[in-house]
Amino acid sequence: MTFPVVGMVGGGQLARMTHEAGIPLGIRFKLLSDTPQDSAAQVVGDVVVGDYRDLETLRAFARGCDVITFDHEHVPTEHLRALEADGIPVRPGPDALVHAQDKGVMRAKLDAIGVPCPRHRVVSDPEDVAAFAAEGDGFPVVLKTVRGGYDGKGVWVVGSVEEAAEPFKAGVAVLAEEKVDFVRELAANVVRSPHGQAVAYPVVESRQVNGVCDTVIAPAPDLDEDLALRAEEMALNIAKELGVVGHLAVELFQTRDGRILVNELAMRPHNSGHWSMDGAITSQFANHVRAVLDLPLGDPRPRAKWTVMVNVLGGDYPDMYSAYLHCMARDPQLKIHMYGKDVKPGRKVGHVNTYGDDLDDVLERARHAAGYLRGTITE
Amino acid sequence: MTFPVVGMVGGGQLARMTHEAGIPLGIRFKLLSDTPQDSAAQVVGDVVVGDYRDLETLRAFARGCDVITFDHEHVPTEHLRALEADGIPVRPGPDALVHAQDKGVMRAKLDAIGVPCPRHRVVSDPEDVAAFAAEGDGFPVVLKTVRGGYDGKGVWVVGSVEEAAEPFKAGVAVLAEEKVDFVRELAANVVRSPHGQAVAYPVVESRQVNGVCDTVIAPAPDLDEDLALRAEEMALNIAKELGVVGHLAVELFQTRDGRILVNELAMRPHNSGHWSMDGAITSQFANHVRAVLDLPLGDPRPRAKWTVMVNVLGGDYPDMYSAYLHCMARDPQLKIHMYGKDVKPGRKVGHVNTYGDDLDDVLERARHAAGYLRGTITE
Repeated sequence: MTFPVVGMVGGGQLARMTHEAGIPLGIRFKLLSDTPQDSAAQVVGDVVVGDYRDLETLRAFARGCDVITFDHEHVPTEHLRALEADGIPVRPGPDALVHAQDKGVMRAKLDAIGVPCPRHRVVSDPEDVAAFAAEGDGFPVVLKTVRGGYDGKGVWVVGSVEEAAEPFKAGVAVLAEEKVDFVRELAANVVRSPHGQAVAYPVVESRQVNGVCDTVIAPAPDLDEDLALRAEEMALNIAKELGVVGHLAVELFQTRDGRILVNELAMRPHNSGHWSMDGAITSQFANHVRAVLDLPLGDPRPRAKWTVMVNVLGGDYPDMYSAYLHCMARDPQLKIHMYGKDVKPGRKVGHVNTYGDDLDDVLERARHAAGYLRGTITE
Repeated sequence: MTFPVVGMVGGGQLARMTHEAGIPLGIRFKLLSDTPQDSAAQVVGDVVVGDYRDLETLRAFARGCDVITFDHEHVPTEHLRALEADGIPVRPGPDALVHAQDKGVMRAKLDAIGVPCPRHRVVSDPEDVAAFAAEGDGFPVVLKTVRGGYDGKGVWVVGSVEEAAEPFKAGVAVLAEEKVDFVRELAANVVRSPHGQAVAYPVVESRQVNGVCDTVIAPAPDLDEDLALRAEEMALNIAKELGVVGHLAVELFQTRDGRILVNELAMRPHNSGHWSMDGAITSQFANHVRAVLDLPLGDPRPRAKWTVMVNVLGGDYPDMYSAYLHCMARDPQLKIHMYGKDVKPGRKVGHVNTYGDDLDDVLERARHAAGYLRGTITE
């Protein structure tokens, strides 16, 4: 056996940070990217520019790779099966990945294995939505296209049967879910390898702004120990039952009455795990690489009492580099992670991590840096 | 101002790890490498293959770079001056770098600024070596070619006038030095930026085997606090007086009578600083990038009580990857850093880092992993 080649489909920031984590392992990293300017394509040596929706492009890319993994969940299932038939390990495999691609399939599976979810049902038209609402506490109801949504896209909160018309216009199946009365959102992140080893990161609190992840606190403050343990066990169980290989993010609602319900699944390194780059003994990216190569997993425990991640969104001011001077001088412990992406308002272009013993201080430092980089804080 | 392009001359492991550290900053990294197979060339996107000894190659490479820095100290001084005349910042600059290129110039400068060194003199022939020996405690005497030596190459310990003939055969000037009665070797690593900010890493102990760095312990155990402070101040002073920009490693002898003497200087990230990748808040590579870009420097303090680095040298068994299974399963906290280099006996092909509260444990884990990867430990 010599050093293997990991083929990464997708050139976004998750691929970029996975490459960064793979360099110390001495593995070869090969990238299939939409364009040569994509975030990861800027920093990877071996880049193939091509369309992952084209099977022959995928097949040609996969030749010479020892394993294929992903920056996103959009590769068609039939293509993944074709690669497997060619003898290329695909991790996570198509049978697992479909649960992250199709929210209807995901909800059916979680029901079957007894994982608590918000009340839900695939609905056929606005009247059906009204019937779903009437079966529970009435409107508002959450509607989601079963495929294609992310970061708040493909999700609607509708207050009436009239408002329920919009989601059906795309011609994609629609899932109705109760609007959960949650006190906060959590994420339980785990990594699982083909031989069945799995590790659980501490459960984190994830704060969203306009449907987009804004702040992650690791570990989740004031989280009951039993609840944390239950969330970790639930995520490990989901990974096992769904046959996940690699990183699995389980986004959770913590309800007012003390339950945890699964909101979404993601089968790749995830925004809620970015804190681990500076805050854990082994980052989610390093463990994802180890998992897809079926290497023993690294210790997921935190290195600091508190680690905070705040996303850097594009603002009106495009020159983020000049903001480095202030941010680095103000906080010599600050960890900046920029993705090489053009600044567009609202676009995730980077994140910052801070860590330390005092949560208020750690939060303030991360928020200040992210705000300054974005241009919403100017002093 | 937009994100700058850092041009790195040399494709070795130092360039590889500098690229890894630069990815989170979102900067562009451009590499001038001898071959497409070099350690860094495997993992960098923007690679120019060419000979750094050729001025036109260097000039073409430097066009479009915002700053030039180095993986090694072998670029001819006149070429560096030509780049500067073209308006390209060269960091460290030729006036600083000459002290790391020429041991005669280095010794003369350290004498001039009052930095304690081993007794030394440039010698002209074996008889002159005998005279140098007689001026002190006699043989043995250390002889070094003033240019071109590293990792024990270009260094001789001679016990007689007859043995002193060899070093003169290359036709390079030879420096004679007293053989210092040292209890151990230390390294004081600092990083300095063009605007004059500087940070000092904790002084480390460096253990050599056959003239090659084997183990580094951070911080140096049982080091007198005053001596540590003096060593840090000395390194900061050298960086300032020599006009260093970037990382400076000051290799030191700790003598039996409690003095510290400068052995060697290196003006680039250095083997004695590899521990900082996992053991410091900001690694030497991240701070080197920040320094050459004149960004505020990051906190150099340790994150763990003890961090140990052990080099992985090539052994007789070429398949290091298969050893990952054992090493990672045995120690989930182990940090492996492999350089993508072919295994040749004695060649530095990687290093491992371990950290923790118990030095004996941290040392044992690092030694075991490095030995297992090399093939000298099989259980």
